[in-house]
Amino acid sequence: MFAAASAPATVANVGPGFDVFGFALEGPCDHVQVRRVSTPGVRLVGAVDPTLPRVVTKNVATAVALRMLRAVNARFGVEVTLTKGLPLGSGLGSSSASAVAATVAMHRLLGERFTDDELLDFARFGEKVACGAAHADNVAPALFGGFTLVRGGSPVEIIRIDVPKNWRVVVVHPHLELPTKKARAALPLSVALRTMTANVANAASLIAALYKKDLALFGRALMGDAIVTPVRKRLIPGCDVAMRAAIQAGAAGVSISGAGPSIFALTDSDAHAKLVARRIAAVWRRHGIKTDVFVSRIGARGALQRR
Amino acid sequence: MFAAASAPATVANVGPGFDVFGFALEGPCDHVQVRRVSTPGVRLVGAVDPTLPRVVTKNVATAVALRMLRAVNARFGVEVTLTKGLPLGSGLGSSSASAVAATVAMHRLLGERFTDDELLDFARFGEKVACGAAHADNVAPALFGGFTLVRGGSPVEIIRIDVPKNWRVVVVHPHLELPTKKARAALPLSVALRTMTANVANAASLIAALYKKDLALFGRALMGDAIVTPVRKRLIPGCDVAMRAAIQAGAAGVSISGAGPSIFALTDSDAHAKLVARRIAAVWRRHGIKTDVFVSRIGARGALQRR
Repeated sequence: MFAAASAPATVANVGPGFDVFGFALEGPCDHVQVRRVSTPGVRLVGAVDPTLPRVVTKNVATAVALRMLRAVNARFGVEVTLTKGLPLGSGLGSSSASAVAATVAMHRLLGERFTDDELLDFARFGEKVACGAAHADNVAPALFGGFTLVRGGSPVEIIRIDVPKNWRVVVVHPHLELPTKKARAALPLSVALRTMTANVANAASLIAALYKKDLALFGRALMGDAIVTPVRKRLIPGCDVAMRAAIQAGAAGVSISGAGPSIFALTDSDAHAKLVARRIAAVWRRHGIKTDVFVSRIGARGALQRR
Repeated sequence: MFAAASAPATVANVGPGFDVFGFALEGPCDHVQVRRVSTPGVRLVGAVDPTLPRVVTKNVATAVALRMLRAVNARFGVEVTLTKGLPLGSGLGSSSASAVAATVAMHRLLGERFTDDELLDFARFGEKVACGAAHADNVAPALFGGFTLVRGGSPVEIIRIDVPKNWRVVVVHPHLELPTKKARAALPLSVALRTMTANVANAASLIAALYKKDLALFGRALMGDAIVTPVRKRLIPGCDVAMRAAIQAGAAGVSISGAGPSIFALTDSDAHAKLVARRIAAVWRRHGIKTDVFVSRIGARGALQRR
């Protein structure tokens, strides 16, 4: 008996929404297949990127599968095949995509018996295995799709918000190494109350912009992050110039995806998105850095909506 | 030649939206009348609360009038009559109401020549005269009505958001003195990044709740403020008990209005609002503290919309 699932790349943080906002992307996916076997426990089968752990409790996909088997007191086991479509360390939610694909594949294998809250918890457990913290800002959009807001609470409350269908996001992944841990360590431990107020105002404005279908306001709000983006920008060679090139090419806004180094920019058409993508890629090319580029709508389908 | 304007009471902060959110209330208003006279300059005429300054540059209404006369290089003067309908130091935007009423009365006297941005600037100047800082979170809703979000920027950008028509707010003003300066001094100068994230998430959720017409979510988001409300609550005798009484009576959420001591609670009907109001008032009565109580929709008309 087999089951499988695909989970998309995601953009988290989204300017002032550090650890709160995220959205799903069309394009690259992680794919997990699970096969029921009579021997209890979990085994990782097939080829895997050599930089990923193969130990069952340390690999995101197998760790999630093991936890879900235990949750149902299964007497059988599973073989897990993980096919990475997402680049590692790109800031596009690579570990979340693996965790979510494993969660949904197992959910299907086990007869779809879990609630949305339970699925989110399994996926967050995978995120914790990967990076030490059970953040939901990438796993929520990878699981449910769309644009998501992690309100917090217990169980963690996820709020889904529709995005205008014609909005486009340009994602550019420069081939640079930027470990998430380094990007996190660069952040301040505390912020001035005034600065916090600016981020609260811009995060709230960004949500209003989604409902008002006001891309220009979304762009202003996106770029109003006074705390995280300015710090992380400095860790990514060429980032500041690339971001300015996006704005000069007419993007409504530009910011860093997750912890970086990928950046994303907003436009209201495919044609404009492709122009912006070329301008951003050209900046990194001048720095001798290769890039992957793709254009997507904001808020694609999540793993639960994909077959 | 006469002109006049009325400006409503307002609730600012609104839980996680410190210095950002505000909404206008039905009920008490400040009223300003201005009369054109040939003698240049501004004079305050009529009776005024003895605790308010009568010096033209220090009284909010006359200071605004003087600035607006100068902005148009007027060779004439005005006599200003200020009728206070709002209680002072209540946390209901008393100084903002005076500043906004003066701004709109002068706007009418001068032939309605100012833009919304200019009007906001004059009203913020009045707020600065009163409290030392040109905050827009009370003046914006007093001027434009509705629920407003102060995004920031220059000129300050105000975003207006519709509120479901059946939502009701119960406002209770306990007769306690709580100077705004003391309430501000109690605030921390900086906050932990984690705490900021919680407030960003709740402020964004509150905006989503307005659009989703989800009063329960609005209430959860309102009460998710981890920074300002917990500190200010302790400065107001009986506040914590009164807030708990509101929730026990079924209010969707409760918080402090502005710097306090007034509090406000949310319901979805007039009848329920009145019940909640009685329960809150009863708590303060047991503390020997009198209260004023009123029920309003959230987001009444602003001074510009009133004649």
